[in-house]
Amino acid sequence: MKFLVIGADAAGMSAASRAKRNNKNLDVTVLEKTRDVSYSACGMPYNIAVPEKAIEDLVVRQAQVFREKQGINLLTGHQVDSIDPQAKTVAGIIDTGEKFEVPYDKLLIATGGSPIVPDLPGFDLPGVLALKNLDHGRKIKAYIDDHQVKKAVIIGMGYIGLEMCESLRARSIDVAMVKPNLNFIPWMADELSGTVKEEVEANGVKLYMGHSVQKIEAATDGLSVICQDLTLDADMVIVAIGITPSSEFALQAGLETSIKKAIAVDRTLKTSDDNIYAAGDCADAYHVVTGKKTWVPLALRANRAGWAVADNVCGRHMELEGIADTAVFKVFDLEVARTGLTLKEAKQSGFDPADVVIKSRSRAHAHPGSTTIHVHLIGDKKTGCLLGAQMVGKEGVAHRINAAAVALHNQMTVERFSQADLAYAPPFGPVWDPLLTAANQLLKKM
Amino acid sequence: MKFLVIGADAAGMSAASRAKRNNKNLDVTVLEKTRDVSYSACGMPYNIAVPEKAIEDLVVRQAQVFREKQGINLLTGHQVDSIDPQAKTVAGIIDTGEKFEVPYDKLLIATGGSPIVPDLPGFDLPGVLALKNLDHGRKIKAYIDDHQVKKAVIIGMGYIGLEMCESLRARSIDVAMVKPNLNFIPWMADELSGTVKEEVEANGVKLYMGHSVQKIEAATDGLSVICQDLTLDADMVIVAIGITPSSEFALQAGLETSIKKAIAVDRTLKTSDDNIYAAGDCADAYHVVTGKKTWVPLALRANRAGWAVADNVCGRHMELEGIADTAVFKVFDLEVARTGLTLKEAKQSGFDPADVVIKSRSRAHAHPGSTTIHVHLIGDKKTGCLLGAQMVGKEGVAHRINAAAVALHNQMTVERFSQADLAYAPPFGPVWDPLLTAANQLLKKM
Repeated sequence: MKFLVIGADAAGMSAASRAKRNNKNLDVTVLEKTRDVSYSACGMPYNIAVPEKAIEDLVVRQAQVFREKQGINLLTGHQVDSIDPQAKTVAGIIDTGEKFEVPYDKLLIATGGSPIVPDLPGFDLPGVLALKNLDHGRKIKAYIDDHQVKKAVIIGMGYIGLEMCESLRARSIDVAMVKPNLNFIPWMADELSGTVKEEVEANGVKLYMGHSVQKIEAATDGLSVICQDLTLDADMVIVAIGITPSSEFALQAGLETSIKKAIAVDRTLKTSDDNIYAAGDCADAYHVVTGKKTWVPLALRANRAGWAVADNVCGRHMELEGIADTAVFKVFDLEVARTGLTLKEAKQSGFDPADVVIKSRSRAHAHPGSTTIHVHLIGDKKTGCLLGAQMVGKEGVAHRINAAAVALHNQMTVERFSQADLAYAPPFGPVWDPLLTAANQLLKKM
Repeated sequence: MKFLVIGADAAGMSAASRAKRNNKNLDVTVLEKTRDVSYSACGMPYNIAVPEKAIEDLVVRQAQVFREKQGINLLTGHQVDSIDPQAKTVAGIIDTGEKFEVPYDKLLIATGGSPIVPDLPGFDLPGVLALKNLDHGRKIKAYIDDHQVKKAVIIGMGYIGLEMCESLRARSIDVAMVKPNLNFIPWMADELSGTVKEEVEANGVKLYMGHSVQKIEAATDGLSVICQDLTLDADMVIVAIGITPSSEFALQAGLETSIKKAIAVDRTLKTSDDNIYAAGDCADAYHVVTGKKTWVPLALRANRAGWAVADNVCGRHMELEGIADTAVFKVFDLEVARTGLTLKEAKQSGFDPADVVIKSRSRAHAHPGSTTIHVHLIGDKKTGCLLGAQMVGKEGVAHRINAAAVALHNQMTVERFSQADLAYAPPFGPVWDPLLTAANQLLKKM
């Protein structure tokens, strides 16, 4: 059987590797449009922060290893243009100029996502850069070095924007961030969002909320980012306003899509075509809280979905429960984490939410070095179930959120969650873990 | 109604305070044999480490606050000698010499635990000290100062012993630890226990496993801890071989006890007498994995049980699900955590366990500062359920264990747990969280 994979990063290579481990006689081919395979995309901001590090340090496994040790037919520089689901073939062009056509029995689309670049004047100027794949990272590093970047503007204030502002500050680059929304992190409660904002500003980053970029212009000495009532000068502009699923072939091939045109897949990762799977940032997922479709392009899901596809292709039935929308990021000395629904999402999803924001400590009473932890906890008044949690703090946030994530997978009520036997020792938290304190407070409002 | 509480630490004061919050007209009296109330017992090793800190820094709330702000009749220096369940009275002696007798409608026994001190020669010598209540901590600090302690022997290698060895090393005291068992941490897999042992030894602590202490003798210059084939000299000896529930009155009053003579309570914390509750280190609990009785004297359960008693006394029905036996401790630069059953406990409880020990990393591939995390995960082959987890590492262990704890509260299978949507960002872990990697590996053995 021929198992063909389009895309050689997290989902694609997880699937290809596992398929070969499951069945070493399987014919596995991977088509990758770039020359980079299997790298840690999430590690790019941290790599960019360190000039002496090669971007290639982020490569988890070399193409050669996949080819020679694992027996995967890994073809880089292969840009797919179309899928023919009737003929079961994939066609495209190699970066050497030749065309190719490859047949498949089972196909995995793991094309990931693409950075959103607005169709506005100047976004195609040199020095206006996005960050999604390794080559983007490579270009940003080269641009900083070649142009001795001293000032940067980041358009957007999401995960990537915030990670990049820390990265650029580590290289002593002045950073201004700009976006149209007046709220800094709109999905977060003010107390939590305000803490992050303070941290970012305390690290010398200038924040301009409420400003829509209208165009970027080349200036005598760099670039000008122009809003109606604001002009920001920069040597480099990072466009970090989000990504969109790379689902073009899927749409052309007539596959069903869902939220934000992500490829619609069932719990086995199968698309609307019986022989085509999709996984990673190009595919959607079920949300364990709402039970409905969602689209959250994150690394763990991509890897896990890749494995599940491999299992299903190899005849081991594998269903994925779904995602809880758990995420964490670091920005300077803060850990920011979320799982499940925000208050707004809870309302939009038809729940009757109650919520509470509490302030607790990262270590016990009287233990030195304790810092503030903010928790926002959301529950459903109708069912009593926990719906979501968000946390901000200098320590003890990144892994703590996982307890709430597991609770969401189990449709736990806030009351039962408040009874969870969580670990306690003075260096690691108060007797009542901040999540438990939040649950205890939330119970009073349910 | 008269609500009487014996014991003014975690469980007792949690109950008294919440009862007053629930119903400010309730007549709440607390009898405490010492002069100390409401302190962080778990904080003592960290306080002892710092000579200039007063042990009273660990007091969470002053007796005066309970009396004047909360209206609790808090009587310190009141040693209870007996309970009369028929007459519904408690009798004892005040440290001024007077006798007392107090009536109750509902009684809470929250007498905690007492350190086990073997009935062997020399354990009553000056300088042979245990650590459980604040006065023990006070005595250890005073003894170190008054006798300029340079060398200490710790008998026992449990949580308290290990926390104390770090505490004493912080004061540049030479430390030797001794115990009869040949295994350093017998409930842990060798790889995990070995990591802890290396850390302790790397910090200059001498470990003597396989040696039973036969007696302690006064020497010309301090104390001699004498085993059959080993004599250890010390200025001070810490006895840390465990604690036992303080259930004497309960036994005398005819209340049922269970494991290790802990007072048997139901899920509402009620003893075998309808008007008597027990909570904290003197009481037992249900284990959420086995469904059976267990006895784990830890702070969170004590606080939570105190609250539940208050609710039940005030007519709000409150049942506690039970404990997962989750615990964490810090020893030098290591975090050591557990939840659920160990492999041995799983076998003893009648499960058919499979287990796996894996080595993962605390941060992502290519992220600086990553250190090793060991995970031991145990599942039941019959039901597929997760049974327990243990972890050791320099970072990311203390809070990570909580995800497994919540899974245990939900009788989650290893397969479902392996699908949990846990948080990922390069500074905080690999894409596949160490717990997930362990679950993926364990699945192959189930």
